[in-house]
Amino acid sequence: MSGFKIPGITVYRLGLYARVLEQFLEEGRELISSDELAKECGVNSAQLRKDLSYFGQFGVRGIGYSVPQLLKHIRRILGTDREWLMVIAGVGHLGQAFLNYNLLAKRGFKFVAAFDIDEKKIGMVVNDVYVYSIEQLPYVLREHNVEIGVITTPAKAAQEVADLFIDHGIKGILNFAPVRIQHPPHVVVEHSDITILFDKLAFYVHRLD
Amino acid sequence: MSGFKIPGITVYRLGLYARVLEQFLEEGRELISSDELAKECGVNSAQLRKDLSYFGQFGVRGIGYSVPQLLKHIRRILGTDREWLMVIAGVGHLGQAFLNYNLLAKRGFKFVAAFDIDEKKIGMVVNDVYVYSIEQLPYVLREHNVEIGVITTPAKAAQEVADLFIDHGIKGILNFAPVRIQHPPHVVVEHSDITILFDKLAFYVHRLD
Repeated sequence: MSGFKIPGITVYRLGLYARVLEQFLEEGRELISSDELAKECGVNSAQLRKDLSYFGQFGVRGIGYSVPQLLKHIRRILGTDREWLMVIAGVGHLGQAFLNYNLLAKRGFKFVAAFDIDEKKIGMVVNDVYVYSIEQLPYVLREHNVEIGVITTPAKAAQEVADLFIDHGIKGILNFAPVRIQHPPHVVVEHSDITILFDKLAFYVHRLD
Repeated sequence: MSGFKIPGITVYRLGLYARVLEQFLEEGRELISSDELAKECGVNSAQLRKDLSYFGQFGVRGIGYSVPQLLKHIRRILGTDREWLMVIAGVGHLGQAFLNYNLLAKRGFKFVAAFDIDEKKIGMVVNDVYVYSIEQLPYVLREHNVEIGVITTPAKAAQEVADLFIDHGIKGILNFAPVRIQHPPHVVVEHSDITILFDKLAFYVHRLD
């Protein structure tokens, strides 16, 4: 990794700020105060100012942030001011949900191919993305400059798929299979466990009067 | 809300600790040090000790935590030491992915019914869960003690579904539609924007040498 280490949770909040700024931009808002942005994002404004201070000076004291400029800055920091080509392995329901999720493409995350081992799925086209046999992965990755691989396979297939991804030049993996992936340090792996969201909701509901 | 306010991110980490402890338990581990648990969870051990200190004293200095006891404690804190009944609205790919995700039921989160407005989906049975017309929601919720409602509808339907949920006694909503839900203070709403995970991955890949 180059440069200083930014905590994962700060990066997550940058993504959150970007989402809220996108909404404000769509509503035609030009300026926003740090208090208002913080409130919309569910963080406190000191936290927001601290997060943004990692990356230099934004906004004007007493006036606030320019919505389009702050969004542009955050996108540049995140690296989402350009297109990212992706592949996905595992065309079950979750995989198809991602392939059909057009907001991803709108935000620059573009699937160029999908993979499965199921004969019934190979040859399908989901939202303009072709489903290849996993055996064709080396040839597909040779043709496209793909940096991100998404894993939506069952747990038992995830490591094998990750190894294939890594062997063929994938730099970042988003893993939705409920298993931890072993990987070399030059590859970034983010693991998403959706069940934790249910735990979090249970905690708060549990404490309701 | 009763008691003191625990930051959402702390609650999220408790869920993460529970997942890792479950893995250790399955591997037959009895004891774990805070350093090892922290490392497996990708947090620092001071953070981990601070998170756990919100809820009293755990572990023995120099010996570590008992894996089954700490897991039991965390589950009690989270409120995941009991069953939670849930319904889901929107039986598209994401909805079906959740209905088919057996780890949820294993962790006590049980779907009792699903809802849709699509005639082709009403009457389907997905992993033993019946898909009702959304119009039948009042009758279904009258029969079951459901506390959690999951929204996997398109954005434009999400508020209407949330209002129905709230009117019929749902206390906690997990919203996967890309839109913010208005709700009264006695209802908990967690919004999950999966696209932020892609942003976060892009950030780290972007910074790889």
